[in-house]
Amino acid sequence: MTYITPTITDLSVNQAGLKDRLTHKINQKTKPLGSLGLIEKLAIDLALINGQESIELQQPKAFIFAADHGLCEQGVSAFPQEVTWQMVENFLAGGAAISVLCKVHGIDMVVVDCGVKHEFGDRDHLINLKVAHGSANSFTAPAMTAQECQQALENGQSLIQQYTGNVVLLGEMGIGNTSAAALLQSRLTGLDIASCTGAGTGLDNAAIDHKTAVLAQVLQQHHHATSPLDCLAAMGGLEIATMVGAILQAASLNKIIVVDGFITSSAVLVASKINPLVLQRCIFSHQSDEKGHKALLASMAATPLLQLGLRLGEGSGAALAWPLLVSAAAIMNNMASFESAGVSEKSAN
Amino acid sequence: MTYITPTITDLSVNQAGLKDRLTHKINQKTKPLGSLGLIEKLAIDLALINGQESIELQQPKAFIFAADHGLCEQGVSAFPQEVTWQMVENFLAGGAAISVLCKVHGIDMVVVDCGVKHEFGDRDHLINLKVAHGSANSFTAPAMTAQECQQALENGQSLIQQYTGNVVLLGEMGIGNTSAAALLQSRLTGLDIASCTGAGTGLDNAAIDHKTAVLAQVLQQHHHATSPLDCLAAMGGLEIATMVGAILQAASLNKIIVVDGFITSSAVLVASKINPLVLQRCIFSHQSDEKGHKALLASMAATPLLQLGLRLGEGSGAALAWPLLVSAAAIMNNMASFESAGVSEKSAN
Repeated sequence: MTYITPTITDLSVNQAGLKDRLTHKINQKTKPLGSLGLIEKLAIDLALINGQESIELQQPKAFIFAADHGLCEQGVSAFPQEVTWQMVENFLAGGAAISVLCKVHGIDMVVVDCGVKHEFGDRDHLINLKVAHGSANSFTAPAMTAQECQQALENGQSLIQQYTGNVVLLGEMGIGNTSAAALLQSRLTGLDIASCTGAGTGLDNAAIDHKTAVLAQVLQQHHHATSPLDCLAAMGGLEIATMVGAILQAASLNKIIVVDGFITSSAVLVASKINPLVLQRCIFSHQSDEKGHKALLASMAATPLLQLGLRLGEGSGAALAWPLLVSAAAIMNNMASFESAGVSEKSAN
Repeated sequence: MTYITPTITDLSVNQAGLKDRLTHKINQKTKPLGSLGLIEKLAIDLALINGQESIELQQPKAFIFAADHGLCEQGVSAFPQEVTWQMVENFLAGGAAISVLCKVHGIDMVVVDCGVKHEFGDRDHLINLKVAHGSANSFTAPAMTAQECQQALENGQSLIQQYTGNVVLLGEMGIGNTSAAALLQSRLTGLDIASCTGAGTGLDNAAIDHKTAVLAQVLQQHHHATSPLDCLAAMGGLEIATMVGAILQAASLNKIIVVDGFITSSAVLVASKINPLVLQRCIFSHQSDEKGHKALLASMAATPLLQLGLRLGEGSGAALAWPLLVSAAAIMNNMASFESAGVSEKSAN
């Protein structure tokens, strides 16, 4: 693969003193020190990505990356494969969870067809970046050829190059994609596959055992795929590969990346194995109930904002957490200081 | 005390079949069963309070109950007492955390002066329900006389009677009020005072030890005060007593009550000991880092929405959680069903 990754700057090197100034600014706000907990950390993180002492959130947009997975032939999902395109239709019609959440919170939404086994035609809010009609079955072959994987990565990059806002909310749809995410997690973090494999859309215990056995065989089939890109091509998915390109490009452009659940986190994992600096731009919206997610977040030293027992995907957790980013920006930008408000500070004790 | 509590209906008795219908409605939405986790529970709880199969959130309003505490004379707080009135000024000027959060999320805000040691005069967004210039020092005397406590309770009731919306967000301000909340928790739940006593606005360990010793003596001083109302008068605060009246009235009128942190939870505890049915109307916004809060929530079988390490009060956690209520309403009201969207359901597995 001749994929050239975009350049990403190190925010901790290039912004000398900014973090200290932001910490001082937050500490001077009219509240006991540290009393806004994770909201304070979030506010500082957002301002660091913005590269300034205040926070600007411009044109937040949810990108829902969709594709089908050949691995579904092995019976790894509780839902039939046609649900992928049916749910894309539901996104576009405004009836899905991500649709109603984006609408109510003022987030623009677009569906990115990276490889759904369906022809949608020209549609509002749908971007056609289809590389293939679904990935191949990784049980017997690489999910993508090197060319397909590279095309998906480049599609993700160009998608973000054309986006003028500064907040990318990541979402996805693809029946079978918790399997791809579990495979990427296991290979790239070294965790055993059983610890990465969960119920997905609702498998019972016997079906999870079957899924785990299938995935163990897929790992064996692709035991030579160890680099992030080889691993992505062999066992990932077209929506995940496109998302990896989008994440790398968004990081390169210093956009705020709001990560959703297990599958989008697996794309961030791949991107962070290519360049760890992407993590400086990532806000992890929640810890889901999908089995591998807690360990996946921990492997990236990520602190999720919400713990609501979600396991839907689509970007729904990112959209649910979005108002917390708005809140953090308001705190950083608009709260008074002890001095400006004329409030007495803490006594010695 | 001749206080007559308002009548509160039992939603589980008076709404035969509604919970089942709501559960069915949520389960038919286009998502894996239960995959929106706590948001699904929240949506059902809100609709049950509304008493219908959809959710209406009308004119959400944050009521910030403020008062001073005579117990501050014993050195139980890290901040000087004048911070109470200074922060009220900050709320009104728009510089406090609760001010900016309410503004950015479209929540109306009003400060209720229940007993601040300061004369504010006539001010926009300030309601004068002052019963006294601060409570008495409960180290040596009851915090309130029975008459004062009753007046505060009735003030809280009339406050809510005049409010035409259906979402009450609870907040408070009162230097020293984590002490009052810890005393109420310890006496009414039986938990030892050390487990209820935390850092408040930022005490160090030695100061927490001193606070704990003071509170143990207060409990001894008022060992005869065991009923919820006697306990409230002896060791509570004017803002807490007014809030208890407001909670009982809001529950009586089937309003949604969004609970903030440790102090507002202690008011809900008192109200729930008077009538447990208030809890059917309470949404617990977050679990704070103040020491006793986790146990206090558990004693009411409450499931908090957020766990962000907050310990600010003011209603800030309630305002941060408010968009989750908006999200839950959008999910319940606007998401499509499998049938309406033409999406295939789960396969047998």
